[in-house]
Amino acid sequence: MLPSPSSKSLESWQTIAKRTQQHRDATLAAVEPPIPDLPELPLDSTPVPKTILTPEELSITESDPVDLLSKLSSGNLSSATVTNAFLRRATLAQKLVNCITELMPQAALERAAYLDAYLKEHGKPIGPLHGLPISIKEMINVKDHTCNAGFISWSDRIATSNAHILDILLAAGCVLYARTTQPQTLMHLETSSNYFGTTHNPFNRNLTSGGSSGGEGALLGMRGSCLGIGTDIGGSIRSPAANNGLWGLRPTSNRLPMQGMTATMLSAEHILAVIGPLSTSLAGVKVFMKTLIDAQPWIREPSLVPLPWKTESQFPIKGGNKTLKIGVLTDDGVVRPHPPVLRALTSLASKLASVPGVEVVPFTPLKHDLAWSIISSLYFADGGAEEKAAIAASGEPWRPLSNFILKENPNVKSLSIAGMWDLTAKRDAYREEYAAHWRESGIDVLFCPVGPGAAPPIDCARYWGYTAQWNLLDYPALIAPVSKVLADDVVDKGYVPRNEQDRYNHELYSPEKYVNAPVSVQVVGRRYEDEKVVEAMEYVQEKLGLPWAKYV
Amino acid sequence: MLPSPSSKSLESWQTIAKRTQQHRDATLAAVEPPIPDLPELPLDSTPVPKTILTPEELSITESDPVDLLSKLSSGNLSSATVTNAFLRRATLAQKLVNCITELMPQAALERAAYLDAYLKEHGKPIGPLHGLPISIKEMINVKDHTCNAGFISWSDRIATSNAHILDILLAAGCVLYARTTQPQTLMHLETSSNYFGTTHNPFNRNLTSGGSSGGEGALLGMRGSCLGIGTDIGGSIRSPAANNGLWGLRPTSNRLPMQGMTATMLSAEHILAVIGPLSTSLAGVKVFMKTLIDAQPWIREPSLVPLPWKTESQFPIKGGNKTLKIGVLTDDGVVRPHPPVLRALTSLASKLASVPGVEVVPFTPLKHDLAWSIISSLYFADGGAEEKAAIAASGEPWRPLSNFILKENPNVKSLSIAGMWDLTAKRDAYREEYAAHWRESGIDVLFCPVGPGAAPPIDCARYWGYTAQWNLLDYPALIAPVSKVLADDVVDKGYVPRNEQDRYNHELYSPEKYVNAPVSVQVVGRRYEDEKVVEAMEYVQEKLGLPWAKYV
Repeated sequence: MLPSPSSKSLESWQTIAKRTQQHRDATLAAVEPPIPDLPELPLDSTPVPKTILTPEELSITESDPVDLLSKLSSGNLSSATVTNAFLRRATLAQKLVNCITELMPQAALERAAYLDAYLKEHGKPIGPLHGLPISIKEMINVKDHTCNAGFISWSDRIATSNAHILDILLAAGCVLYARTTQPQTLMHLETSSNYFGTTHNPFNRNLTSGGSSGGEGALLGMRGSCLGIGTDIGGSIRSPAANNGLWGLRPTSNRLPMQGMTATMLSAEHILAVIGPLSTSLAGVKVFMKTLIDAQPWIREPSLVPLPWKTESQFPIKGGNKTLKIGVLTDDGVVRPHPPVLRALTSLASKLASVPGVEVVPFTPLKHDLAWSIISSLYFADGGAEEKAAIAASGEPWRPLSNFILKENPNVKSLSIAGMWDLTAKRDAYREEYAAHWRESGIDVLFCPVGPGAAPPIDCARYWGYTAQWNLLDYPALIAPVSKVLADDVVDKGYVPRNEQDRYNHELYSPEKYVNAPVSVQVVGRRYEDEKVVEAMEYVQEKLGLPWAKYV
Repeated sequence: MLPSPSSKSLESWQTIAKRTQQHRDATLAAVEPPIPDLPELPLDSTPVPKTILTPEELSITESDPVDLLSKLSSGNLSSATVTNAFLRRATLAQKLVNCITELMPQAALERAAYLDAYLKEHGKPIGPLHGLPISIKEMINVKDHTCNAGFISWSDRIATSNAHILDILLAAGCVLYARTTQPQTLMHLETSSNYFGTTHNPFNRNLTSGGSSGGEGALLGMRGSCLGIGTDIGGSIRSPAANNGLWGLRPTSNRLPMQGMTATMLSAEHILAVIGPLSTSLAGVKVFMKTLIDAQPWIREPSLVPLPWKTESQFPIKGGNKTLKIGVLTDDGVVRPHPPVLRALTSLASKLASVPGVEVVPFTPLKHDLAWSIISSLYFADGGAEEKAAIAASGEPWRPLSNFILKENPNVKSLSIAGMWDLTAKRDAYREEYAAHWRESGIDVLFCPVGPGAAPPIDCARYWGYTAQWNLLDYPALIAPVSKVLADDVVDKGYVPRNEQDRYNHELYSPEKYVNAPVSVQVVGRRYEDEKVVEAMEYVQEKLGLPWAKYV
């Protein structure tokens, strides 16, 4: 329940935050049977569920979402059972890693019961995602619920309708049961706000879950969800996917519905945010994309492009093998990735080279530092005025990474219209130059790091280059878990950093600090070749048996 | 040859204009056999060619471009013969209606000879447009030629490479032989500059040829070209197509290559300019679209969408007939069209209703006045500063319609970044509202006016609403010639204008002033449904025998 505006104006940001946490806790308390409080929070949270949940709950929540869909649509599992298992595990995840803004047990279980009854009555599922519980990042509007983009001053904003994407997923049979944390301003590659504090990495609580869709990342990393919705304007789907050993896709812009978000800069066109899936399987990513695009969202939302989701192979077959030319970029020339990332990519490249039909070539970066200077200025073409006003309005403190991206970032400038057009022209020239560079390389897809290391320690995610690069170019980019930090990924003590960012990153790392962190790769394709990126990784997974390990 | 900068800075705008005209005249004088000067310029220029050109030249230049292509690719006609016929007729068109900035007889005839030799040597055409002469608007870059966007101060700008579209069309076999006039600023629906003065309408020299691709319009109207390239950000392909009895398509944005234009506001994304064809036949429009899209221009130009040009029918067939639901909008509720437009649309609607499988329904306009206020502000988000500076730099006078659109237009305001984002949000809300309105109507395509009358008298094209509407929505829009102004299209003397714009338009008209002017319709489709729009008109033409009359 919301206070009236007059009473609200007297409230401190602390009071608002407290009330928001109390609301969250009340929604957790309504989950049955209750999850006990934990006496102590371990470094690695991932073994905890098996000490608390039932074998059936463990089995359900650790299933591939596509296997769940098969059991749900045939009636072998009820949506009520599946939904309650995820509600229970999400409650536990919140207690361990602080990733939930609210659960919706009552509405979710009512919806699940409706779907179970539907299946019984009609003898067929309501749609391709019949009965599947999904989680969503808080900024994606849910009718009659608050949407605050991580700003305390926006605490009284109530969505008057569902986001378009949510309408389609519900029509396809999903059950919405959890909303997840996000950072102040939404412009961090971590998740830290004055509403809820910090979201932690399930594998190592000293590390970040990533961001800005870091509540999704941590929840899925804990297997408190198997399919969630994030958004990405600089890495916000991919950083949480990578940090938590998940699959995640930043699709090309204007393929998935964007109507109904709560955020700053919503009408800025110079750099487009995208929405996309995080999942515990690649099949989960695929079914998400196909279901949404098959619904022809461009009819309601005319900014979208009516490109069907292609199901035919995007690669020629020769001698029974798909032929793929894969580029490998290990280092963007600005900040060198940590040893585990270099080792994982190098090892992957050598394995790939042994797959029949696959050709592996090195790929040279092209001015990735220029790309960052363009995109980080275009993000905040108003000089960050909208974010600064939204923070100032409540008197809440600046979180460290808000400060980093808005105040310490030398590219944040208040532009004139002419200045913005100039910068847009630079962006387009760079895009055309990169298109020519890609064409000359002849590659189909590119394998590269997701960041300059595995999940960094809290408040240290200060280099966006490996993800923001593909936002500037608007290339689709898929995250795949391939390894973890190993004890023998030792520090390169002789390394001489190239610049201040490189030095900062180099000094962050030791295998001890990063222990247990997942290591992922990013698979990038040309603009609108989302299907090609997914298919390439699917083929690689089939041939090499990735990811590195099963979750359990 | 260009003067050195030091000498140029001493030149008056009149001197620059004079030299530009002398260059143009020299290129005309190189065409053989020469076209005589005309003692007198008649009101209707269209009968003049048959008094000057040979029967073969008349036959070639009055052919459907697709018939020409068939003869060119089989060797029944040589490209040299065809090119020279168009060079001769273009020379005559220039003398009659003032539509040419330069001809390229030597380069064109050398290219034609090369193509003729290629066909002889290889026994097959070089590409799908083998040997076909095409004309282009001046702003589309031609390597080593000047490109001035209608500003005297830009007279020394030389393109360092061809526009992307030109490269593709040349690779497909085209011959470039003519460049055509455009207005100062490019932001008129007429064609008037201080380089060349006014371009006239071939059917009635007191009327405008339209603009800003009005040189193309007049040249094709005179049959001095059969296929030309224009651009459109508010009606600049469609107004010249309609005013000159031609076919023209404003495609959805990002389907055809845009690299290599000379204009102001090139990086503005809020309203995207598009490039597209004007032709003497609908088949010419189709072959242009298909050739360009089949070349996969998105590889070089990553802002383009990789949507193939669909050749399969976009309409279901029932009982041997295509089923189409056609909306008809006769009046946008802001400015009522003149009697010939209302009569032509009403008559067309009643004929359409008799075609089996076609359902005709009225379509209600939705806030078209709001649309104009949004788009005309977004055009000039910098308050028109770039245009004003480009005019001021040479001291050239403001042409009347530059004054109208930039100085008299109350929506021209210098916006802040936040102001621009606000207006972009209004644009998007309007687009979504219109998408819902269209969906509710259930129509496939919409037939509506191209403007509030046929081609208006010179300097009187002051209402953009009927074309700019579809730029704001980014809907594809095809122009089809359907009638002409008739003596019994009398003034509605009892009409009470709704507003000042409506009064101005109402008072412009009399059947005497507009005598002989073509009357056209606009066929509009949903975003990216370019193929549907073309196919709908093709079907209507097949069933109703449009256009109203053959040119000769």
